[in-house]
Amino acid sequence: MRVAVVRETREHETRVALTPELVGRLTGLGWEVAVEPGAGERALRPDEEYAAAGAVLDPGLAHDLSGADLVLSVQPLARERVRRLRRGATTVSFLPATQEPALVADLRDVGATSFAMELVPRISRAQSMDALSSQSLVAGYRCAVVCAGLLRRFLPLNMTAAGTVPPAEVMVLGAGVAGLQAIATTRRLGAVVRAYDVRAAAAEEIRSVGAHAIELELPTLEGAGGYAREMSQERAERQRELLTPYVAAADALITTAAVPGRAAPLLVTAAMVEQMRPGSVVVDLAADAPTGGNVEGSVPGEVVRIGGAQVWGGRNVPAQMPEPASRLYAANVTDLVALLTRDGALDPDWEDEIVASSCVTHDGEVRHEPARLVLEEPGGETA
Amino acid sequence: MRVAVVRETREHETRVALTPELVGRLTGLGWEVAVEPGAGERALRPDEEYAAAGAVLDPGLAHDLSGADLVLSVQPLARERVRRLRRGATTVSFLPATQEPALVADLRDVGATSFAMELVPRISRAQSMDALSSQSLVAGYRCAVVCAGLLRRFLPLNMTAAGTVPPAEVMVLGAGVAGLQAIATTRRLGAVVRAYDVRAAAAEEIRSVGAHAIELELPTLEGAGGYAREMSQERAERQRELLTPYVAAADALITTAAVPGRAAPLLVTAAMVEQMRPGSVVVDLAADAPTGGNVEGSVPGEVVRIGGAQVWGGRNVPAQMPEPASRLYAANVTDLVALLTRDGALDPDWEDEIVASSCVTHDGEVRHEPARLVLEEPGGETA
Repeated sequence: MRVAVVRETREHETRVALTPELVGRLTGLGWEVAVEPGAGERALRPDEEYAAAGAVLDPGLAHDLSGADLVLSVQPLARERVRRLRRGATTVSFLPATQEPALVADLRDVGATSFAMELVPRISRAQSMDALSSQSLVAGYRCAVVCAGLLRRFLPLNMTAAGTVPPAEVMVLGAGVAGLQAIATTRRLGAVVRAYDVRAAAAEEIRSVGAHAIELELPTLEGAGGYAREMSQERAERQRELLTPYVAAADALITTAAVPGRAAPLLVTAAMVEQMRPGSVVVDLAADAPTGGNVEGSVPGEVVRIGGAQVWGGRNVPAQMPEPASRLYAANVTDLVALLTRDGALDPDWEDEIVASSCVTHDGEVRHEPARLVLEEPGGETA
Repeated sequence: MRVAVVRETREHETRVALTPELVGRLTGLGWEVAVEPGAGERALRPDEEYAAAGAVLDPGLAHDLSGADLVLSVQPLARERVRRLRRGATTVSFLPATQEPALVADLRDVGATSFAMELVPRISRAQSMDALSSQSLVAGYRCAVVCAGLLRRFLPLNMTAAGTVPPAEVMVLGAGVAGLQAIATTRRLGAVVRAYDVRAAAAEEIRSVGAHAIELELPTLEGAGGYAREMSQERAERQRELLTPYVAAADALITTAAVPGRAAPLLVTAAMVEQMRPGSVVVDLAADAPTGGNVEGSVPGEVVRIGGAQVWGGRNVPAQMPEPASRLYAANVTDLVALLTRDGALDPDWEDEIVASSCVTHDGEVRHEPARLVLEEPGGETA
């Protein structure tokens, strides 16, 4: 068994799929772990650490993965790499199957068994493999730190000999893993935090991390797997209307409402941002979602000015903290690999809910139903 | 009595000497408060707030302060403004008297009474006028936030379903007001913090804000007014040697050892920074001190790379948080003005220690002894 860990090639990707401290989990199974030189460099994990952990550094992986039985990556492999995989090879990575049908077709055609980390079901047995959650945790922290850095005010209350400076008021929209982490971090820094989420369960979670839960006179939208459901146009408009005064009163706004694989909801219009005071800050974690972020006008990877506010648009936010993001992702990946393994060999139990849910292609077939439907649409493969 | 509040003209200065909520303290004495339009803009205090508070907006102040009895500013006035002051006018601002002898000569020659905020003595009665402390508080917070933003790791410990990410280790050198605030803020974010200061009293203060106090086998250097004394070359070298392993072990280093009006000590050489791990962060609050900062190679206003570390050089750091910095500075200034006032008129009690210590020029004389000595050196006035 030969495992390959590649250097990521997508723009702005700094993470690595396996960190040195987890190499031993795979070599302990009798497997060879081959790492492309520089794979961990941007995540602050130099080649020497991999070598010291028992991995082999193999520059050949850059152009040829045909010797690998298992390929680990953060982003899906480039198509030219997929086409040269060994028949029956397994890949584990993020893999937005419905958005990348041509890649899925390649994986199918080459006979690869591919697993998508974002398809790991949100059940308690799979918590340690939940890469969406682990990366959201990193992103939520990062959003809070970015917010504190852009804001030209203190987050905490400051009582000094020269008088008292009141704490900043931060508003967080979306209280999933990222939102709760953003709340917890801005609270740690002493801000007064208000938060809103469309899910019924959110209010209690918001309060548990020290924020005020905003409750609007609107129906809640609890969806599958603990994520929010999409909402009607009418409800979205009413929600924006009800949130307007809260946004206007905040010194900083952090939006984290991104539903994996779907368009992010437009929670805040430019007109709402324009009502904020000069010097206000908006952090839109979802700015790089497929059809735009939670805030109208946010631009991924840039700080733009809307009215008197600075609006920061997230772009692959977990990759802005590659060290911890990689560490957690690697733990998620190796736990999934362990689940796929029996007696030292990859031997997935297809009856297992986690295995069945997260598989995209296997044995020349597309197993992921939505991706299969996209592929069967006219022109699906070339999208 | 007419008070003028000017728009600051020095580069990178964003603060304002009087904030709207304190206008009433001066108008309450029966004084007129004239504000140059735009004075508070960069500190997020628009003209309308001043007008609403009872101030008069006067565009003429930009080129003519001759109608003012009292001029308030953050930075010292430009020389061309000083030369047109009314005889007997009073100025209150920061005023680095020994570094700006030509300006001091102008203030003397025009017969102005000038007070320097950095000369307010560090005695308990003057605490509310201590602008060095209030601005250091702001700077220390800012350093911690900048550090968190540059570091590609979590400051806090994170225990997740995918495992535990250890907290970052932050080292703080200098535990005055700025250093203690940097410690408190990085501690709030969950970092493990170690700190060192040459003063004997520092260890207890360091521990009181939750950090480990590093104690070196070196004599302490308690100086006047609670500030550190300068140290010998030999001691400085030995200190750097003893600190080297601590610096090398830290994920982030924040240096805050700046003695007002003096060169900042070189605490950390480039060679010490080069021993830090890749991805480490150094924040040098003192980078814009007269002869360089605490860290060799730091550049004010820039992030430079030394070895694998990013080194952030401070440049007028309090001005990076102009809203709270101005609020506190304005409180310091109005408290000093109150002390200078009797029966609604400026009438300083020259027997008062605070008044006597902070006065630079009065009635055609330089009252500040060190500045007078500089002026009496050959060529002193044109320096």
